[in-house]
Amino acid sequence: MRAEIICVGTELLLGQIVNTNGAYLAEKLARLGIDLYHLSTVGDNLPRLTALLQQAWQRVDLVLISGGLGPTLDDLTREAVALLAGEELVEDPGARRMIEEYFYRRGLPMPPSNLRQALRPRSAVCLMNPYGTAPGLWLEKDGKMLAALPGVPIEMKNLMEKEVLPRVERARRARAETGDPGTVLVSRVLKAAGIGESAMTEEIQDLLAGQTNPTIAPLAKRGEVWLRLSAKARSEEAAFALIRPVEEEIRSRLAGYIFGTDGEQLEEVVGRILTARGLTLGTAESCTGGLLSHRITGVPGASAYFLAGVVAYANRIKEKALGVEKTLLQEYGAVSPQVARAMAEGMRKYYGVDLALSTTGIAGPGGGTAKKPVGLVYLALAHPEGTVTREERFCWDRTENKIATAQAGLVMLWQYLEGAFSCAQQGNC
Amino acid sequence: MRAEIICVGTELLLGQIVNTNGAYLAEKLARLGIDLYHLSTVGDNLPRLTALLQQAWQRVDLVLISGGLGPTLDDLTREAVALLAGEELVEDPGARRMIEEYFYRRGLPMPPSNLRQALRPRSAVCLMNPYGTAPGLWLEKDGKMLAALPGVPIEMKNLMEKEVLPRVERARRARAETGDPGTVLVSRVLKAAGIGESAMTEEIQDLLAGQTNPTIAPLAKRGEVWLRLSAKARSEEAAFALIRPVEEEIRSRLAGYIFGTDGEQLEEVVGRILTARGLTLGTAESCTGGLLSHRITGVPGASAYFLAGVVAYANRIKEKALGVEKTLLQEYGAVSPQVARAMAEGMRKYYGVDLALSTTGIAGPGGGTAKKPVGLVYLALAHPEGTVTREERFCWDRTENKIATAQAGLVMLWQYLEGAFSCAQQGNC
Repeated sequence: MRAEIICVGTELLLGQIVNTNGAYLAEKLARLGIDLYHLSTVGDNLPRLTALLQQAWQRVDLVLISGGLGPTLDDLTREAVALLAGEELVEDPGARRMIEEYFYRRGLPMPPSNLRQALRPRSAVCLMNPYGTAPGLWLEKDGKMLAALPGVPIEMKNLMEKEVLPRVERARRARAETGDPGTVLVSRVLKAAGIGESAMTEEIQDLLAGQTNPTIAPLAKRGEVWLRLSAKARSEEAAFALIRPVEEEIRSRLAGYIFGTDGEQLEEVVGRILTARGLTLGTAESCTGGLLSHRITGVPGASAYFLAGVVAYANRIKEKALGVEKTLLQEYGAVSPQVARAMAEGMRKYYGVDLALSTTGIAGPGGGTAKKPVGLVYLALAHPEGTVTREERFCWDRTENKIATAQAGLVMLWQYLEGAFSCAQQGNC
Repeated sequence: MRAEIICVGTELLLGQIVNTNGAYLAEKLARLGIDLYHLSTVGDNLPRLTALLQQAWQRVDLVLISGGLGPTLDDLTREAVALLAGEELVEDPGARRMIEEYFYRRGLPMPPSNLRQALRPRSAVCLMNPYGTAPGLWLEKDGKMLAALPGVPIEMKNLMEKEVLPRVERARRARAETGDPGTVLVSRVLKAAGIGESAMTEEIQDLLAGQTNPTIAPLAKRGEVWLRLSAKARSEEAAFALIRPVEEEIRSRLAGYIFGTDGEQLEEVVGRILTARGLTLGTAESCTGGLLSHRITGVPGASAYFLAGVVAYANRIKEKALGVEKTLLQEYGAVSPQVARAMAEGMRKYYGVDLALSTTGIAGPGGGTAKKPVGLVYLALAHPEGTVTREERFCWDRTENKIATAQAGLVMLWQYLEGAFSCAQQGNC
């Protein structure tokens, strides 16, 4: 089965928002092994939207549209789908009721324009949206499928999961029963940290060159390198069976670097290990300004191990909240391994956590000197047996330097939890 | 002048990464008033990339490609551009030297595969990339322009700003001198907070319905509503002159809600006011876990006013680091207006900041009860004259609840700085 995604909205073409809906929908299709060949963005323009829709409808079996279902006159997805289907728009009584109730429950009068949202092409189905006034649309015609979803991410995601994916699954099963199941494409992503792309490529050069099924595609991310293994076979199980031995070979060559697979994030992996070992964690941040604790607390259940964070942006807060001695700050400066160490040790001691991670550095654009340029960062991890510090030199802008530093902190913590540091080896505990 | 953007990379079609490059490039074109009609994403597949490229080349004057310039065999943009131009690929001596130096400076041997990156279609120009090994490509042919940029964001952005935009500007000037300057489209975005989309729409219903040049398009964002005013005219000045009176009318009707324009973020606006008034700020976060201080410290120069943040995730840290009394926590629970107030006041008193903002709530997915459901949040702002608290009830997932809470905190701070609260009016100082 092949699919296309069309995202509708002039704001996307003006670069005012990043198209996260496209990535979300693409990922859902990839998980089902549905091939996505095109992901297109078009503005609120009926001729262009219709042309794109017709091209997609001819090329693939499943078309997903996101956006253009709002109440205003520049919301044109309903009209475009009706033109594609060659059908008139009719009012859906259930959708009308849903929209009226939406306003009634909020004690608001319903603007008449919202009634446009109850329209659907005659043979289409309205998908009821509990989070907003825009019902989705589902159309099956000539053996093809189309789903139109609202552009608001939470509304789109809910309808995709509750209404669209079950219908797609049903259609796939029906096809598999009646005929050729076709080829299934599955992917598995191995995520590595603490190694650069070229160093990793060196380790697996022969695999990269020699493999055709699965293929192996490296992808450099901020502070991580991902390897995507993709295999084709007659079934999911057969495709994963092709991936398995190659994955094992890669894992053995890259031992100590691969931290997770697929959608797993480094902070989740770290959180799982901390939970399993009953260890608690605190952060003492300067240049990352809270990003490190934000990432850590993004994981559901983080309150079981993450107890405390201090963002000690001013020097006197480093003294007051973390007990960093004034003489250290005066002698070495706030951006130094000595202060990073004192921050981590202060967090550990003052707030009674098992592990404490600290960051101090010059995020930029201002504040750099010849000796301590923008991007210079020190990290420290205080643990029950001692403290390890690390220097990094990033060369990005403020945002990217913060991101790279938080990532380096999580990598350091993960490596510690994996037993990568022994005090003897590190030499600076 | 019309443009299209093509983003290349199977990882985009698998939803493994969000296409931020597309939004960045789109925004740059919008600023120049260049009309973007399509933004397409395609995988690492030569026939599909070539077909899309040919379609774009016929439709528009300027084609921007991002991605597919790496050293591996699945990087196919060079080949696709050569096919489009009907030219062979030749080695560019300058690009070869740049790539060799890149490895030499890092003391690394150059893998032979990197030499592929020195290839260009015969009539194209290599754009030298200081941040990586992939030169960009620039092609002018038959009165049309094409730029191919690497997919790594920082490399792409640098080449876009240093190499591509000046060439596009030069071509536009040359066209303007020789003939019809054409129509220019300009946009201005007004950003509002503290008001919902429908309430705002009510206030400007007649403007929304009656305006054609400029057009006014509302866009609901997380905790903000944006109004995009777009005008067409023979020159930029003439187009902005059409926008100005409509903007003034909107500003007068939405006084107290519009905080900024175009790319301005709420934390920048807040930072500017704090700097101007010489006020300092601290944060005391529970459910936002550091996101609030991360946003605040994302602004260059934030260290002038942001001094301290505490992420008091555990109750005993609320006591230890913020002086919240145990009896308050026992009597009202951590998620209560009383504890929010005590956290903000503790931050203000302990760390000596002028203004302190606190958050406490249930981000989810766990931890909710019938009385205190997931999404219930209390915020407090302690200021020199007293403390204001606010209750919010969000209904999203953990990530979105954190984002909505941090946004609500910044809105509250901005409203305070704008003089929106008086103690009498708020009633709970």
